[in-house]
Amino acid sequence: MAATPVALRKLMESFAALPGIGRKTAQRLAFYVLDMPQEQADSFAKAILEAKSTIHNCKICQNFTDKEICDICSSPDRDGSVICVVEDPKDVMAFERLQEYHGLYHVLHGLISPLDGIGPDSIRIKELLVRLQTGDVKEIIMATNPTIEGEATAMYLSKLLKPLGYKVSRLAFGIPIGGELEYADNVTLNRALENRTEL
Amino acid sequence: MAATPVALRKLMESFAALPGIGRKTAQRLAFYVLDMPQEQADSFAKAILEAKSTIHNCKICQNFTDKEICDICSSPDRDGSVICVVEDPKDVMAFERLQEYHGLYHVLHGLISPLDGIGPDSIRIKELLVRLQTGDVKEIIMATNPTIEGEATAMYLSKLLKPLGYKVSRLAFGIPIGGELEYADNVTLNRALENRTEL
Repeated sequence: MAATPVALRKLMESFAALPGIGRKTAQRLAFYVLDMPQEQADSFAKAILEAKSTIHNCKICQNFTDKEICDICSSPDRDGSVICVVEDPKDVMAFERLQEYHGLYHVLHGLISPLDGIGPDSIRIKELLVRLQTGDVKEIIMATNPTIEGEATAMYLSKLLKPLGYKVSRLAFGIPIGGELEYADNVTLNRALENRTEL
Repeated sequence: MAATPVALRKLMESFAALPGIGRKTAQRLAFYVLDMPQEQADSFAKAILEAKSTIHNCKICQNFTDKEICDICSSPDRDGSVICVVEDPKDVMAFERLQEYHGLYHVLHGLISPLDGIGPDSIRIKELLVRLQTGDVKEIIMATNPTIEGEATAMYLSKLLKPLGYKVSRLAFGIPIGGELEYADNVTLNRALENRTEL
């Protein structure tokens, strides 16, 4: 495609480098950018650069922030006695959308996965232990995903933190609300059965 | 989500404004950009700005180019006696990938669609008539899509150009190669029957 102008080709390549964006979609997005009003394209480019330059990890909880300490960690309205441990900043967003959880977070930025060479030292466990030394944390909620790595990480942290006197809890896993028993996979159904609660 | 830093929210909004990118995907892409090496993010932002500033329509064929006259129109190797009329620059790319067509193109940047208020004056038909006055064009291939608007536009142009003495042709439509009769829709099957060729 020698006929494609260089600038257009570069833009398509930039889009195609993003996860889940194939050649066709990259082309469609690049053409869409060409048709955008100039201001929108300017603010798109600016958004990329500003996000890169201003966003970093909160010194305390490791979530993304543009301050030294994030809004959640520095808020006087949050309950400092509970820390919800998650894999990813995306998970913090999911909880915050809920507007039901008022404690703090800790973002691990990964999960323990020996097969991929990711040990406890590769994720932000050290930072969790450091912050536990100050503050009056009572409960730590393990909110990693119910995958092999998520379970292993929750188990590892639980074994590490329980002897230190913290209450360590795990999210409930089972049949999703609105789901049907008939279509639940065996592992989920089994989990729902094991963790049944008294009525 | 007051806890989401402004720069991150703006980046997610920029992605979400693109066609076919929902809230979840926009979030995933924004997080991916945050994890990118700085150079890649810089070149992404630069690609957007450079594409916007350098790409415009070729004075002759209306395809995207970074020159006054595009590489195809200015190439001495292309057959100036045939013009392939397409809806969109994407269609030019599709033909160029083929490497089988050596004529010129004309990009309409739209199709006649009275219901959407798009008449013949809203697309680049004027520019086609102007370029036909010079040059020695013999055949004009209507390569608009086989949709109602595509057919209407092809028909309109054909009625306009045939009286001027040009040979006007239309792409063949029928069962796609590798397709199965059994699964062809009625319109396609009917078209394949009508346009059957002698063996």
